[in-house]
Order: sequence, then C-alpha cells, then structure tokens
Amino acid sequence: MKLYESEFTPSCRRVTLFMHELNIDIEKVQLNVREGDNLSLTHKQKSINGKVPLLELADGTCISESVAICRYLDGVFENDKALFGQDALHQAQIEMWQRIVEQEGLYTGFQAFRNSSQVYSDRERCVSLWGDECKLRVNEFLPKIEHQLTHNAYMVGDKFTIVDITTFVFIGFVNNVLKIPTQDQFPHTTRWFQHVLQRPGFK
Amino acid sequence: MKLYESEFTPSCRRVTLFMHELNIDIEKVQLNVREGDNLSLTHKQKSINGKVPLLELADGTCISESVAICRYLDGVFENDKALFGQDALHQAQIEMWQRIVEQEGLYTGFQAFRNSSQVYSDRERCVSLWGDECKLRVNEFLPKIEHQLTHNAYMVGDKFTIVDITTFVFIGFVNNVLKIPTQDQFPHTTRWFQHVLQRPGFK
Repeated sequence: MKLYESEFTPSCRRVTLFMHELNIDIEKVQLNVREGDNLSLTHKQKSINGKVPLLELADGTCISESVAICRYLDGVFENDKALFGQDALHQAQIEMWQRIVEQEGLYTGFQAFRNSSQVYSDRERCVSLWGDECKLRVNEFLPKIEHQLTHNAYMVGDKFTIVDITTFVFIGFVNNVLKIPTQDQFPHTTRWFQHVLQRPGFK
Repeated sequence: MKLYESEFTPSCRRVTLFMHELNIDIEKVQLNVREGDNLSLTHKQKSINGKVPLLELADGTCISESVAICRYLDGVFENDKALFGQDALHQAQIEMWQRIVEQEGLYTGFQAFRNSSQVYSDRERCVSLWGDECKLRVNEFLPKIEHQLTHNAYMVGDKFTIVDITTFVFIGFVNNVLKIPTQDQFPHTTRWFQHVLQRPGFK
C-alpha cells in the first residue's frame, strides 16, 4: 500500500492526520503539485480526479479523494476509534457536519484561494470576482463553527471524529492561507483548536 | 420520522430515489424553496444548513444533507442492497465516485445555474462570470462519466449503488436545467440512463 501525496496540502493533511489517529504508517511518495507532478500521464492513469492524495493498493487498485482513502483505511485497519461514527445516528451526524464544513468552509476556501491567487492559472481558468465572493462566504460561515463549539467539546458531540480533522485543516487554511484571523473573534473555536493541536501529529 | 422536502429539487430527488430503492415510505412535508419556505425561523432552527431535504426524527433530532439522510435511513432500515458498498474497498470506491460526481458534476452544475440564472439573487450574491465558467466545467466533466460507463454497467462496477442515483440526478439536471444535451454525444451514458429510468420511482 502506497500513498502519493503533497505533504502540506490540506487534502493530504486530512489523510495523514487520520492515519495518525489510527497509528497507521505506510509508504509515502511525495509529489510536487505546484510543479505539476500530478499532471503526468502516469499519475493521470492512476487517479480519476488527477489530484493527490492517491492511495495505491498492492494489486494496483487506486483510490482518490481524501475521505474515500480515510474510509478505506478505517475499514481495513481494525480499530475502536469510530472516527466515522459508532451507530446510524452518529454516522449520519458526522456525514452531515463533514459536508457542511467541506462545502461552506473548506471547498469555498479553496475556491477563494485558487481564483484570487491564480496560483493554478497555468491549468485552470480563474474568476477573481468569485474568489472575492468565496472569501466573504468563508467569513460568514465561521460563526457557525463557533456556535457548534460553544455547545460541544468537539464538532460532533463529546468525542473526536473525522469532522474535527476536517475543521482543524479548514481553520488552519483560513488562518495561514486566506490570512483571516480567528483567535480574537472566536474563543470557542480557538479553545478547541488549541486542544486538538495537542494530539500527536497535529503540531 | 418526517422528511421536509421540495419534491423536484435535485437534492430532494436523491433522497426520495434512495428511499424508493429501500422501499421506505415516511411522512413528507412539502416546502417551497423558491418562495423561501426554508428561510423561516422554524426551519432554520431545525436545519444547520438552512436547506431541504431535512429529516426530523421522533425525538426532534434533525439531519440535514441528502447523503447524511440516506446514510441514516440505510442504517436503520435493514436491507441487503449495499447502496453504500459491501466491503471496505467497495465503500471507498463509492465514496470516491460520489465525491467526484458531486464536486466536478452536480455542485458545479448548481453553481452554474444559481450564478447564471440568479434565481436566488434575493438571498445570495451571484457572479455570472463564475456561472459561465461552471457550465464549461460541467461540459468538460461529462466525458469522464461516459468513459466510466463505457467500461462498467453501473457507475461503480456491475451493481447499482448510490452513485448511480447521484449521477442520474446530475444528468437530469444537465439536460433539463442547464439545457446541455447528452443523448447524441454520449451513447454509454444514454444507454445507462435509459436503463436506470426503468427502475420503480425513477420515471
């Protein structure tokens, strides 16, 4: 089993943090996305979305999409962490929050960055007005996370789940890439973030 | 258990088609999204994303997001359909294709429609240039589905799964809302679509 990744990209971070939680260590191959390593014919033949992370199994089967990779690893490495939830309701609530944080938060943040910075203008058409709009939407979404963390120790109830990984990566992206500070404005988000930061592998 | 929906919206269709597959029949409450029924305080208190579909359980617990609702129903209504997959690899492949069809297809199509038509300009800021760009991206994504259906009876292998529901709703949206015809250009997609259309509830 081999993981192709670009170590510091948010989607790859989601997988490596998930692996940390399950104490999984597998072979990793670094690709430089900015340099276009993922645009090679070899990579495109393996990856349906042309992106990293990409998990390649021993028989050559390949899995794209960070959450799909996490779901696979969770299924084959026996564990009692229940990062995807422990019963039907918990699993549904995790699915719900994953999608809300991804759609209103993380992916909107990606669109803000890609369209505004034009960092990938060599491979995609950018609309800078949409980048500005997405940055506004990220700002409007942050209070929803603050509200959730005001009433819960973690994003879904009192146990750490994959939604905390997604939200942790999102807040990091908001602070470090979009340069939106959250520390003063959102005390509960900050308390939770500092707490999650203590976990092995999150520093 | 009660499902709040707007019958003909794509996200609600995903849930009702899923329920058809599992022979589930629960109480439904129609909300008119275009008229803003989902913007009421009552709805906002129940729904974290402010949208439909929304599943309300007997104890008042609410689940938003169509796929989260499907996952809950699949968990509590015992069945042997394995619409989310039957083992770790199958589940991961379904998660992968779900996300690819959603992100490159369905949600990009939604953005094309919302930003171009400005149908929700009473409640969101629209960027028409981004609408145009998204329509182009939908066009560029369609061959990926055609390729997958050239080599498979269904979107993931030889069994009907939730990815077929997502893709069916997407192709319907492409044809009927975005007015992009697919019938002549994509014979395998068309063959598959006509085949899925024969299932109870899909007409």
